Amino acid sequence: MATIRDVAKLAGVSVATVSRVINKNGYVHETTKQSVEAAISQLNYRPNEIARTLYKKNSKLIGLIIPDITNPFFTELARAIEDTAHHYGYTVVLCNTDEILEKEKHYIEVLQQRQADGCIMIINEKVTHSNLQQDFPIVALDRPIHAEIPFIHADHYQGGQLAAQILLRKGSKHLVHIRGPKYLDSAEARYQGFLDIVKKESVSYHILESSFQPSNDERLINDLFDRFPETDGIFAANDVIAVSALKTALRRGIAVPEELQIMGYDGILFGQLFYPSISTIAQPIYQLGEKATKILLQWIETKTCDPLVSCLPVEWIERDTTRKELLDEQHSNNR
Amino acid sequence: MATIRDVAKLAGVSVATVSRVINKNGYVHETTKQSVEAAISQLNYRPNEIARTLYKKNSKLIGLIIPDITNPFFTELARAIEDTAHHYGYTVVLCNTDEILEKEKHYIEVLQQRQADGCIMIINEKVTHSNLQQDFPIVALDRPIHAEIPFIHADHYQGGQLAAQILLRKGSKHLVHIRGPKYLDSAEARYQGFLDIVKKESVSYHILESSFQPSNDERLINDLFDRFPETDGIFAANDVIAVSALKTALRRGIAVPEELQIMGYDGILFGQLFYPSISTIAQPIYQLGEKATKILLQWIETKTCDPLVSCLPVEWIERDTTRKELLDEQHSNNR
Repeated sequence: MATIRDVAKLAGVSVATVSRVINKNGYVHETTKQSVEAAISQLNYRPNEIARTLYKKNSKLIGLIIPDITNPFFTELARAIEDTAHHYGYTVVLCNTDEILEKEKHYIEVLQQRQADGCIMIINEKVTHSNLQQDFPIVALDRPIHAEIPFIHADHYQGGQLAAQILLRKGSKHLVHIRGPKYLDSAEARYQGFLDIVKKESVSYHILESSFQPSNDERLINDLFDRFPETDGIFAANDVIAVSALKTALRRGIAVPEELQIMGYDGILFGQLFYPSISTIAQPIYQLGEKATKILLQWIETKTCDPLVSCLPVEWIERDTTRKELLDEQHSNNR
Repeated sequence: MATIRDVAKLAGVSVATVSRVINKNGYVHETTKQSVEAAISQLNYRPNEIARTLYKKNSKLIGLIIPDITNPFFTELARAIEDTAHHYGYTVVLCNTDEILEKEKHYIEVLQQRQADGCIMIINEKVTHSNLQQDFPIVALDRPIHAEIPFIHADHYQGGQLAAQILLRKGSKHLVHIRGPKYLDSAEARYQGFLDIVKKESVSYHILESSFQPSNDERLINDLFDRFPETDGIFAANDVIAVSALKTALRRGIAVPEELQIMGYDGILFGQLFYPSISTIAQPIYQLGEKATKILLQWIETKTCDPLVSCLPVEWIERDTTRKELLDEQHSNNR
């Protein structure tokens, strides 16, 4: 592979001159510039990016720290982040933590040591500032980290309200919300939104808690149908739980949506492949990833950042696990 | 952030001495070593990994070039690769190409420029060697690149045979194989395996071709049921197609597996969430990613590599889109 010395030799100039041409700084005579560029082209010379990093303090690498890429919500976020980074000339280092604190700390350290320019993080722990270099740009996505760190998320409270409103409007009277873990603010907000709607209505409701571990959901849902056989509407805290609820209901011979409506959450692409396909409250997954990346890159390149909080709206995607008919007059009171 | 100079100053030694302690080379008196280590600890000094890379020529970064992380087969591979890399102290740069040649070339260049230590690639194009640095370790996964590049894949010919054998053994007599694109060797091998079994039997069969673009599959499958209504067994070239076939069949009121058996391929985790759950020929996805990573890291660390081809066996996962009953006597002839 050609070095800067080879280029200088071929062009008949000094290494410093080649460097000035590459970095576009300092005066170089036009004829000299052309002969350097010809030599670069002829030798297929590529500047050593790591050496440039030392000089420029910019590696064009950003980190993405997420719990698990095989969770489809994170998969789709990762895709959006990588697309956006690529568009701006950055590459993405993928880090799976399995929500293990030690792995989260380890990756933060590795990224800083290898001079990533910054990092997008979906972590649970409120990382103390002593673990972070003061000048290391971080954007928190989906889960907040610290008041001084920008935070991008969807409006989960609105999502919880919307889910409850739609299930009620379409006639469910015995609701169950399978909520996410209590330590997640996003799960808590969905739950609060749901609760604030249903407690104003003359309907029964129950709350169950999923650990967001799909392997445990099937037992949880079987238990739900045993304990509350009158259930005619389920709001699942994510689409994967909704899918488990659908499978378990069908296996028990419960007609969906005629006897039981199911509302998912997240809006992962997979939801449309089921029969019936999963009605869901969709987060703007792609936009969340795109926006987090743009904020990070702006911070990296301008060296300034407002620790803003950005909340994007959710939307209902009507598919086939909710009923088509509109609410009749009797049910529409108070809504 | 502390520098090596700060450490040297605090410990009262030269920068060269600190460097010897960090890099564990050259003689340093035990007392001196302890005072340097104390200074490193007190200042929370982290050696600058990029500067070390220049010296050591090892960035501990590897690239992963794949078509699209949101395809669950690639998602699960990426997870296995990242796990394995992490275990050995490496991090993974994620690159989605959408099978666009320009993006493939761009990422190869970016990874080499940023001094990744090597790369795992799932690409279609047989990359010419002129695009690659001679000393840049590459492992081809799932799709071959070049005779001199190690290649890890599953035994797709065996997989195609197995799918046909099981559908026949469980009584299907009118088979359809929805194959993958002709430019993929892996799709071709599944097709050949299927063909070599069915053409020996007194059954009818048809071959359709999917572009592996899920958005087009539903029309393809509706067309299949219109043209070949007698179809009682489908071998889909991947699980996502199998899922589309299941949904389309159920929507048409076709009982699965009683009237129609469906066999998927890949063994993605999602297949078990459907009702009925998807019977499939499973690739050892995790092992494929793990093995590719181990071969790459061995090459990076030992500087030697046999351009081996490693073919892992597939296995049938029996779920609910194939019938439970065994073949009766009449059907078992010649098998």
